[in-house]
Amino acid sequence: MTGAHTELELPPPLPAGGLRVTPLGGLGAIGRNMTVFEYGGKLLIVDCGVLFPDVEQPGVDLILPDFTAILDRLEDVQAIVLTHGHEDHIGAVPYLLAHKPDIPLVGSQFTLALVEAKLAERRIEPYTLTVREGRREPLGPFECEFFAVNHSIPDALAVAIRTPAGLVLHTGDFKMDQLPLDGRVTDLAGFARLGAEGVDLLLSDSTNAEIPGFVTPERDIGPVLDSIFAKATGRIIVASFASHVHRVQQVLDSAYEYDRKVAFIGRSMVRNMGIARDLGLLRINAGLVVGLEEATALPPDQIVLMSTGSQGEPMSALGRMAVGDHRHITVAPGDTVVLASSLVPGNETSVYRVINQLSRAGATVIHKDVAKVHVSGHSPAGELLYVLNVVKPRNLMPVHGEWRHLRAHARLGIESGVPADRVVLCEDGDVVDLVEGRARLVGHVKSRYVYVDGLAVGDVGESLLTERRILGDGGFIAATVVVDSVTGKVVGGPTVSAKGFSEDPEAFNAVVPLITEALDRAALEGITDPHQLQQIVRRTVGRWVNEAYRRRPMIVPTVVEV
Amino acid sequence: MTGAHTELELPPPLPAGGLRVTPLGGLGAIGRNMTVFEYGGKLLIVDCGVLFPDVEQPGVDLILPDFTAILDRLEDVQAIVLTHGHEDHIGAVPYLLAHKPDIPLVGSQFTLALVEAKLAERRIEPYTLTVREGRREPLGPFECEFFAVNHSIPDALAVAIRTPAGLVLHTGDFKMDQLPLDGRVTDLAGFARLGAEGVDLLLSDSTNAEIPGFVTPERDIGPVLDSIFAKATGRIIVASFASHVHRVQQVLDSAYEYDRKVAFIGRSMVRNMGIARDLGLLRINAGLVVGLEEATALPPDQIVLMSTGSQGEPMSALGRMAVGDHRHITVAPGDTVVLASSLVPGNETSVYRVINQLSRAGATVIHKDVAKVHVSGHSPAGELLYVLNVVKPRNLMPVHGEWRHLRAHARLGIESGVPADRVVLCEDGDVVDLVEGRARLVGHVKSRYVYVDGLAVGDVGESLLTERRILGDGGFIAATVVVDSVTGKVVGGPTVSAKGFSEDPEAFNAVVPLITEALDRAALEGITDPHQLQQIVRRTVGRWVNEAYRRRPMIVPTVVEV
Repeated sequence: MTGAHTELELPPPLPAGGLRVTPLGGLGAIGRNMTVFEYGGKLLIVDCGVLFPDVEQPGVDLILPDFTAILDRLEDVQAIVLTHGHEDHIGAVPYLLAHKPDIPLVGSQFTLALVEAKLAERRIEPYTLTVREGRREPLGPFECEFFAVNHSIPDALAVAIRTPAGLVLHTGDFKMDQLPLDGRVTDLAGFARLGAEGVDLLLSDSTNAEIPGFVTPERDIGPVLDSIFAKATGRIIVASFASHVHRVQQVLDSAYEYDRKVAFIGRSMVRNMGIARDLGLLRINAGLVVGLEEATALPPDQIVLMSTGSQGEPMSALGRMAVGDHRHITVAPGDTVVLASSLVPGNETSVYRVINQLSRAGATVIHKDVAKVHVSGHSPAGELLYVLNVVKPRNLMPVHGEWRHLRAHARLGIESGVPADRVVLCEDGDVVDLVEGRARLVGHVKSRYVYVDGLAVGDVGESLLTERRILGDGGFIAATVVVDSVTGKVVGGPTVSAKGFSEDPEAFNAVVPLITEALDRAALEGITDPHQLQQIVRRTVGRWVNEAYRRRPMIVPTVVEV
Repeated sequence: MTGAHTELELPPPLPAGGLRVTPLGGLGAIGRNMTVFEYGGKLLIVDCGVLFPDVEQPGVDLILPDFTAILDRLEDVQAIVLTHGHEDHIGAVPYLLAHKPDIPLVGSQFTLALVEAKLAERRIEPYTLTVREGRREPLGPFECEFFAVNHSIPDALAVAIRTPAGLVLHTGDFKMDQLPLDGRVTDLAGFARLGAEGVDLLLSDSTNAEIPGFVTPERDIGPVLDSIFAKATGRIIVASFASHVHRVQQVLDSAYEYDRKVAFIGRSMVRNMGIARDLGLLRINAGLVVGLEEATALPPDQIVLMSTGSQGEPMSALGRMAVGDHRHITVAPGDTVVLASSLVPGNETSVYRVINQLSRAGATVIHKDVAKVHVSGHSPAGELLYVLNVVKPRNLMPVHGEWRHLRAHARLGIESGVPADRVVLCEDGDVVDLVEGRARLVGHVKSRYVYVDGLAVGDVGESLLTERRILGDGGFIAATVVVDSVTGKVVGGPTVSAKGFSEDPEAFNAVVPLITEALDRAALEGITDPHQLQQIVRRTVGRWVNEAYRRRPMIVPTVVEV
C-alpha cells in the first residue's frame, strides 16, 4: 500500500502495451471526479466533474480539475464517459468542451439529458453516444462495457474497460440497495462475471468506506414521509436534491396518498423532473402536479411544495422562503418543512441557519438528524466488501474520497485478500501504470485546484486565496503617502484608512504620528526610494497594530509619486 | 407559545412582587449562556459563558454576552451562579469581573477550580462560595437550592431559585445517564419534590430537544475503547475535550487493561486532569501516567497519548501532530488515533481536515461516524419529557439552544401538558416577568453579540464583519489619485492595486485609462470635491469589474490632496 507522496516526479514514458491511469480529480476530496486512461497513444476520460468550494476557498464559485496534463492531447481523446448526472461528475464538461467541443460524450439517457441541458445554456451542442447497461462499445482501443449501478440518481453506470493491457472496472458512484424503487440493482452478477474473467484493476467508490454496515433501502423513507404527511395539518414543503428522482417519487406518492397536490419550485427541480417524467423515470398521477400559482390558491392542507435548497443555499427557493424573501411563498406557523436530503460536509452552518430561520418563523422542521428522511447514495464498508469479494481484483485503486475514505477502502481491500503491495493509494495527479498485470505508481502530473470565480477561470490561485483569508479574518489598514518624484520628500499624507478592522473612529490617531516620524527619520537617512518607503510604512503600522491590538490585518502601504 | 418577535420595546418597570428573567445569551445560539434574575431590586446571574464564532464571524476570537443591560446595576448583583465548568458557561466571567471583581462566584468544587485557574491567568482572585447538591444558600433575596445533574463534565448542578414571586428551576445543561461512571445521576427525585411543591417556571436545556429517545450511557464507550486497544499494534493517540474527566477515565482504564502508559498532552488537558485528580474525580493507578518524554522513550505499543485538539484546532497538540509540526510527536503508519469527542457544529471542516491529514500520514483514525466513541452530554427528547412530567411546571421557558431546539422543546412542553400560552419562547435579550404565577414576555433589552478580537472587546461590530466577508470573498481593488488641494486638478495617479482579486499581472491595464477618462470628464464639469471624485473612481472601477469579471470585490478609492 503506497500513499502520501508529495514530491513525485513526472512519469516516465508509458511502456508499450501498458495502460496508464491518471486521476485528475476525486482523490483527496469528494468532487471534481475525473480519470484519464491512456493506451496506445489514445486517451479515454471517465467523468469530468466539479468540486464545490468550502471555507478554505472563499469567494470561489467552483473548482475544476486541472486539464493541463491533457490540454495538448485533446486530439487523442476518444470520448468522455459519464457514469451519472451529478455535478461532481458532469459539471466540468462545459469547461473541457470549451477547449474542444467535438469530444464525444458517452452516457446513459438521463445522464446525457442532464449534461445536454447544461451545455445548452452555453450554446454547446455536444456529440453524444447513448449507452445502457449490457451494452459494449469500442471507443478507440478502449472496449467499454456498461453495467447498471444503483445510486442516488437514476440511470447510473459502471464501466469496464478492456485493452490489451488488461481489464479494468471503474464502478463510478454506487450503492447496493437490494430493493431499489426502480428495481435496477447494482449488477453484482455482472461484476462477478468480470471477476471470473479476471479484473486487473478495480477503481471503486470510497465515499462511505469508513462507515460500517449496509445502506438503508431508499423505500424505507416512504413510510416516514407518510407519517409526516399524516400528522401535518398545514402546508408541507419538502426540499431535496433536484436530481434525486426516487426521493421526489416518494414525495409524490405520499402526496397522492394524502390527497395533496404537488408544485415543483426551483429552476433545476422543474427542469430535471420534466426530463425524468419524459424519460419514464418519474411516474406522475394525472392531476397530481400543479403549477405554483394553482398550488398557492389551494388550502394549506392540500399542498406539497417540492423545492430545491436542501443545502441551505441562501438564493435557492427554500433559502428565500426561510427569510421571507420568496415572491410567492412565506413560511408561517403550521407549515411542515422536510429536508429529505444529505447534509454535504461543509454546508452544516448554512443548512442549520435555514432550519433555524424556518423554526423561528414557526415551522416544524424535520431533517435527517430527527427522522429517517434521507439515506446515502454510496455503499458503506459492508457492501464494498461484497464488490471486492466478487470482483477479486488483482490490483485495487480506491477512488472518490478524501484521504480518510481512501485509506479505509484500502484497508478493506487488504482485509478481503488483495495483496497490500497491489493496493495503490493515490491522490489527484498521481500516475499509475498497469503493466503486465501489475499496477504501480510511477509519477505525478500537475493537478492544481482550478478556480472559477465569476467569469474568469484560473486567475485565482492559492496565494490569492491566502490574501482573501487574511483580509477576511482581519481586514486591512491602508496608509497612503505622496512623495515628490524628484526629491523623494513627503508632500502629502500619511492618510490612514481601514476596512474590516475597527469601528472605533479614533483608532488611527496614534499611528499617524508614528508614520510621519518614521518617514522623517528616513528622509534624514536620505531614503527616497518609493519601495523602501513603502516597507517603512508597512513595518511601522504592523508593529503598532500588533502591540496595540494583537491582530494581523493586512497592511497596505501606498506611496504615490507626484 | 410566543416567539420570533423582532421589534419589542424596552420592558415596563417590574411590578412589585414579580420576578424578572432576562436571558442575555444561550437562546438562539448554542453558547454564551447567561441568565439574569431580578427580584426586589436585586440581581442574580446564572452562568456567564462565551460563544465560539463560526464562519459568519470571521477573525473573531470569542463572542460575549452583552452586559449593557446590567452594567449600571453591578452593585445589585448578589452572585454569579455557575452551573458547571464548560467555557460556554464560565468563559465570560473574566470579562464581567473586569467591570467589578468582587461579585461572588457560586458553584461546585470542580467548577470553581476551573474558573479560578482561568482567572489566575488574568491575576483576578475571585470571591467564591463552594456549594454542592442538597445545599440551600440564600443569595440576597434569592434562596437557592442545588441539585446534582449528570453532564459531560463532573460536578454539574441545577439550581432552584425561590423568591416570594415563586419557585424557578434552572436545569443548567444535563442528561440522564442512569448508570454514570461516578454514580451521580441527575436528581430526578429532587426535581419531583420541587414539582410537588409547585414549580412556577422551568428553564431547561434544549440542546438535544429535536433528537428522539435517550442517551447512550457513557460507560458503553469503555468496551469500544477496549476493542480499539485490543487491535492496535502501534501507538494510540486519543483526543477529547480537556474537561471530559469521565471520557479520560475510560481511556485510562483501557490503557491500564492493555498495559500501556498514558501521557497527557496539551496545556488544558494537563491542567484539568491535575485538578480532577486532586479533587478525587479522576482515579489514576500508580505509575500509569507518565511524562511525555518518558512516554516517547517507550515502544509504540506501550503508549497512549491523551491529547487536546478534538475539534480540529490547528494550533492544538493533535492539530500540530497531524501536519508534522509537533515538537515531540510525529504521526506515522501504525498509529491509531481516536477522536473520542463530539463534532461541534461549525467545526466539521477543521475536524475532517485533521482526520484526512492523519490518514494521509498513515494513521488509522477512529471517530464518532465510525464507532461509538462519543455520546452527547445533553438529554434528548425522551429524557426531557421525564423532567417535564415530574416537574409539571406552570410555565416553561426552553433555554440553551438554537431556534430549532427551542421550538422542539416548546412542542414537548405542550405535548406533556404545559398550556401553550404558558410556554415562553424567547431569544437573547427578551425580558420575561413572572407575576402572580404567570410568565409573560414583556419587552426586550439590547443583546448584541459582543466580539473579542485580539486585545479589544467590542470594537468589532456587524458592519465591520460585513466588510470582512466582502473582503474575504472578493478581495479589494484600491485606486489612488492625487489632486491639487487648491485647483482640484489631478496631479498624480491613478494608481490601481489589488489584493485577493486576480493573479493576472495585466488585470488592471484596462481600467486605468477608464479612471483617467472619468476624472478628465469630472474636471471639465468643474468637479473638485475629493469626496465626489472618490465616488467617481468607485463607480468607474465597480462598473468595469462587474462587466469584465462578474465579481464584487471591495472598491477602495483614495483621493489624496497635496
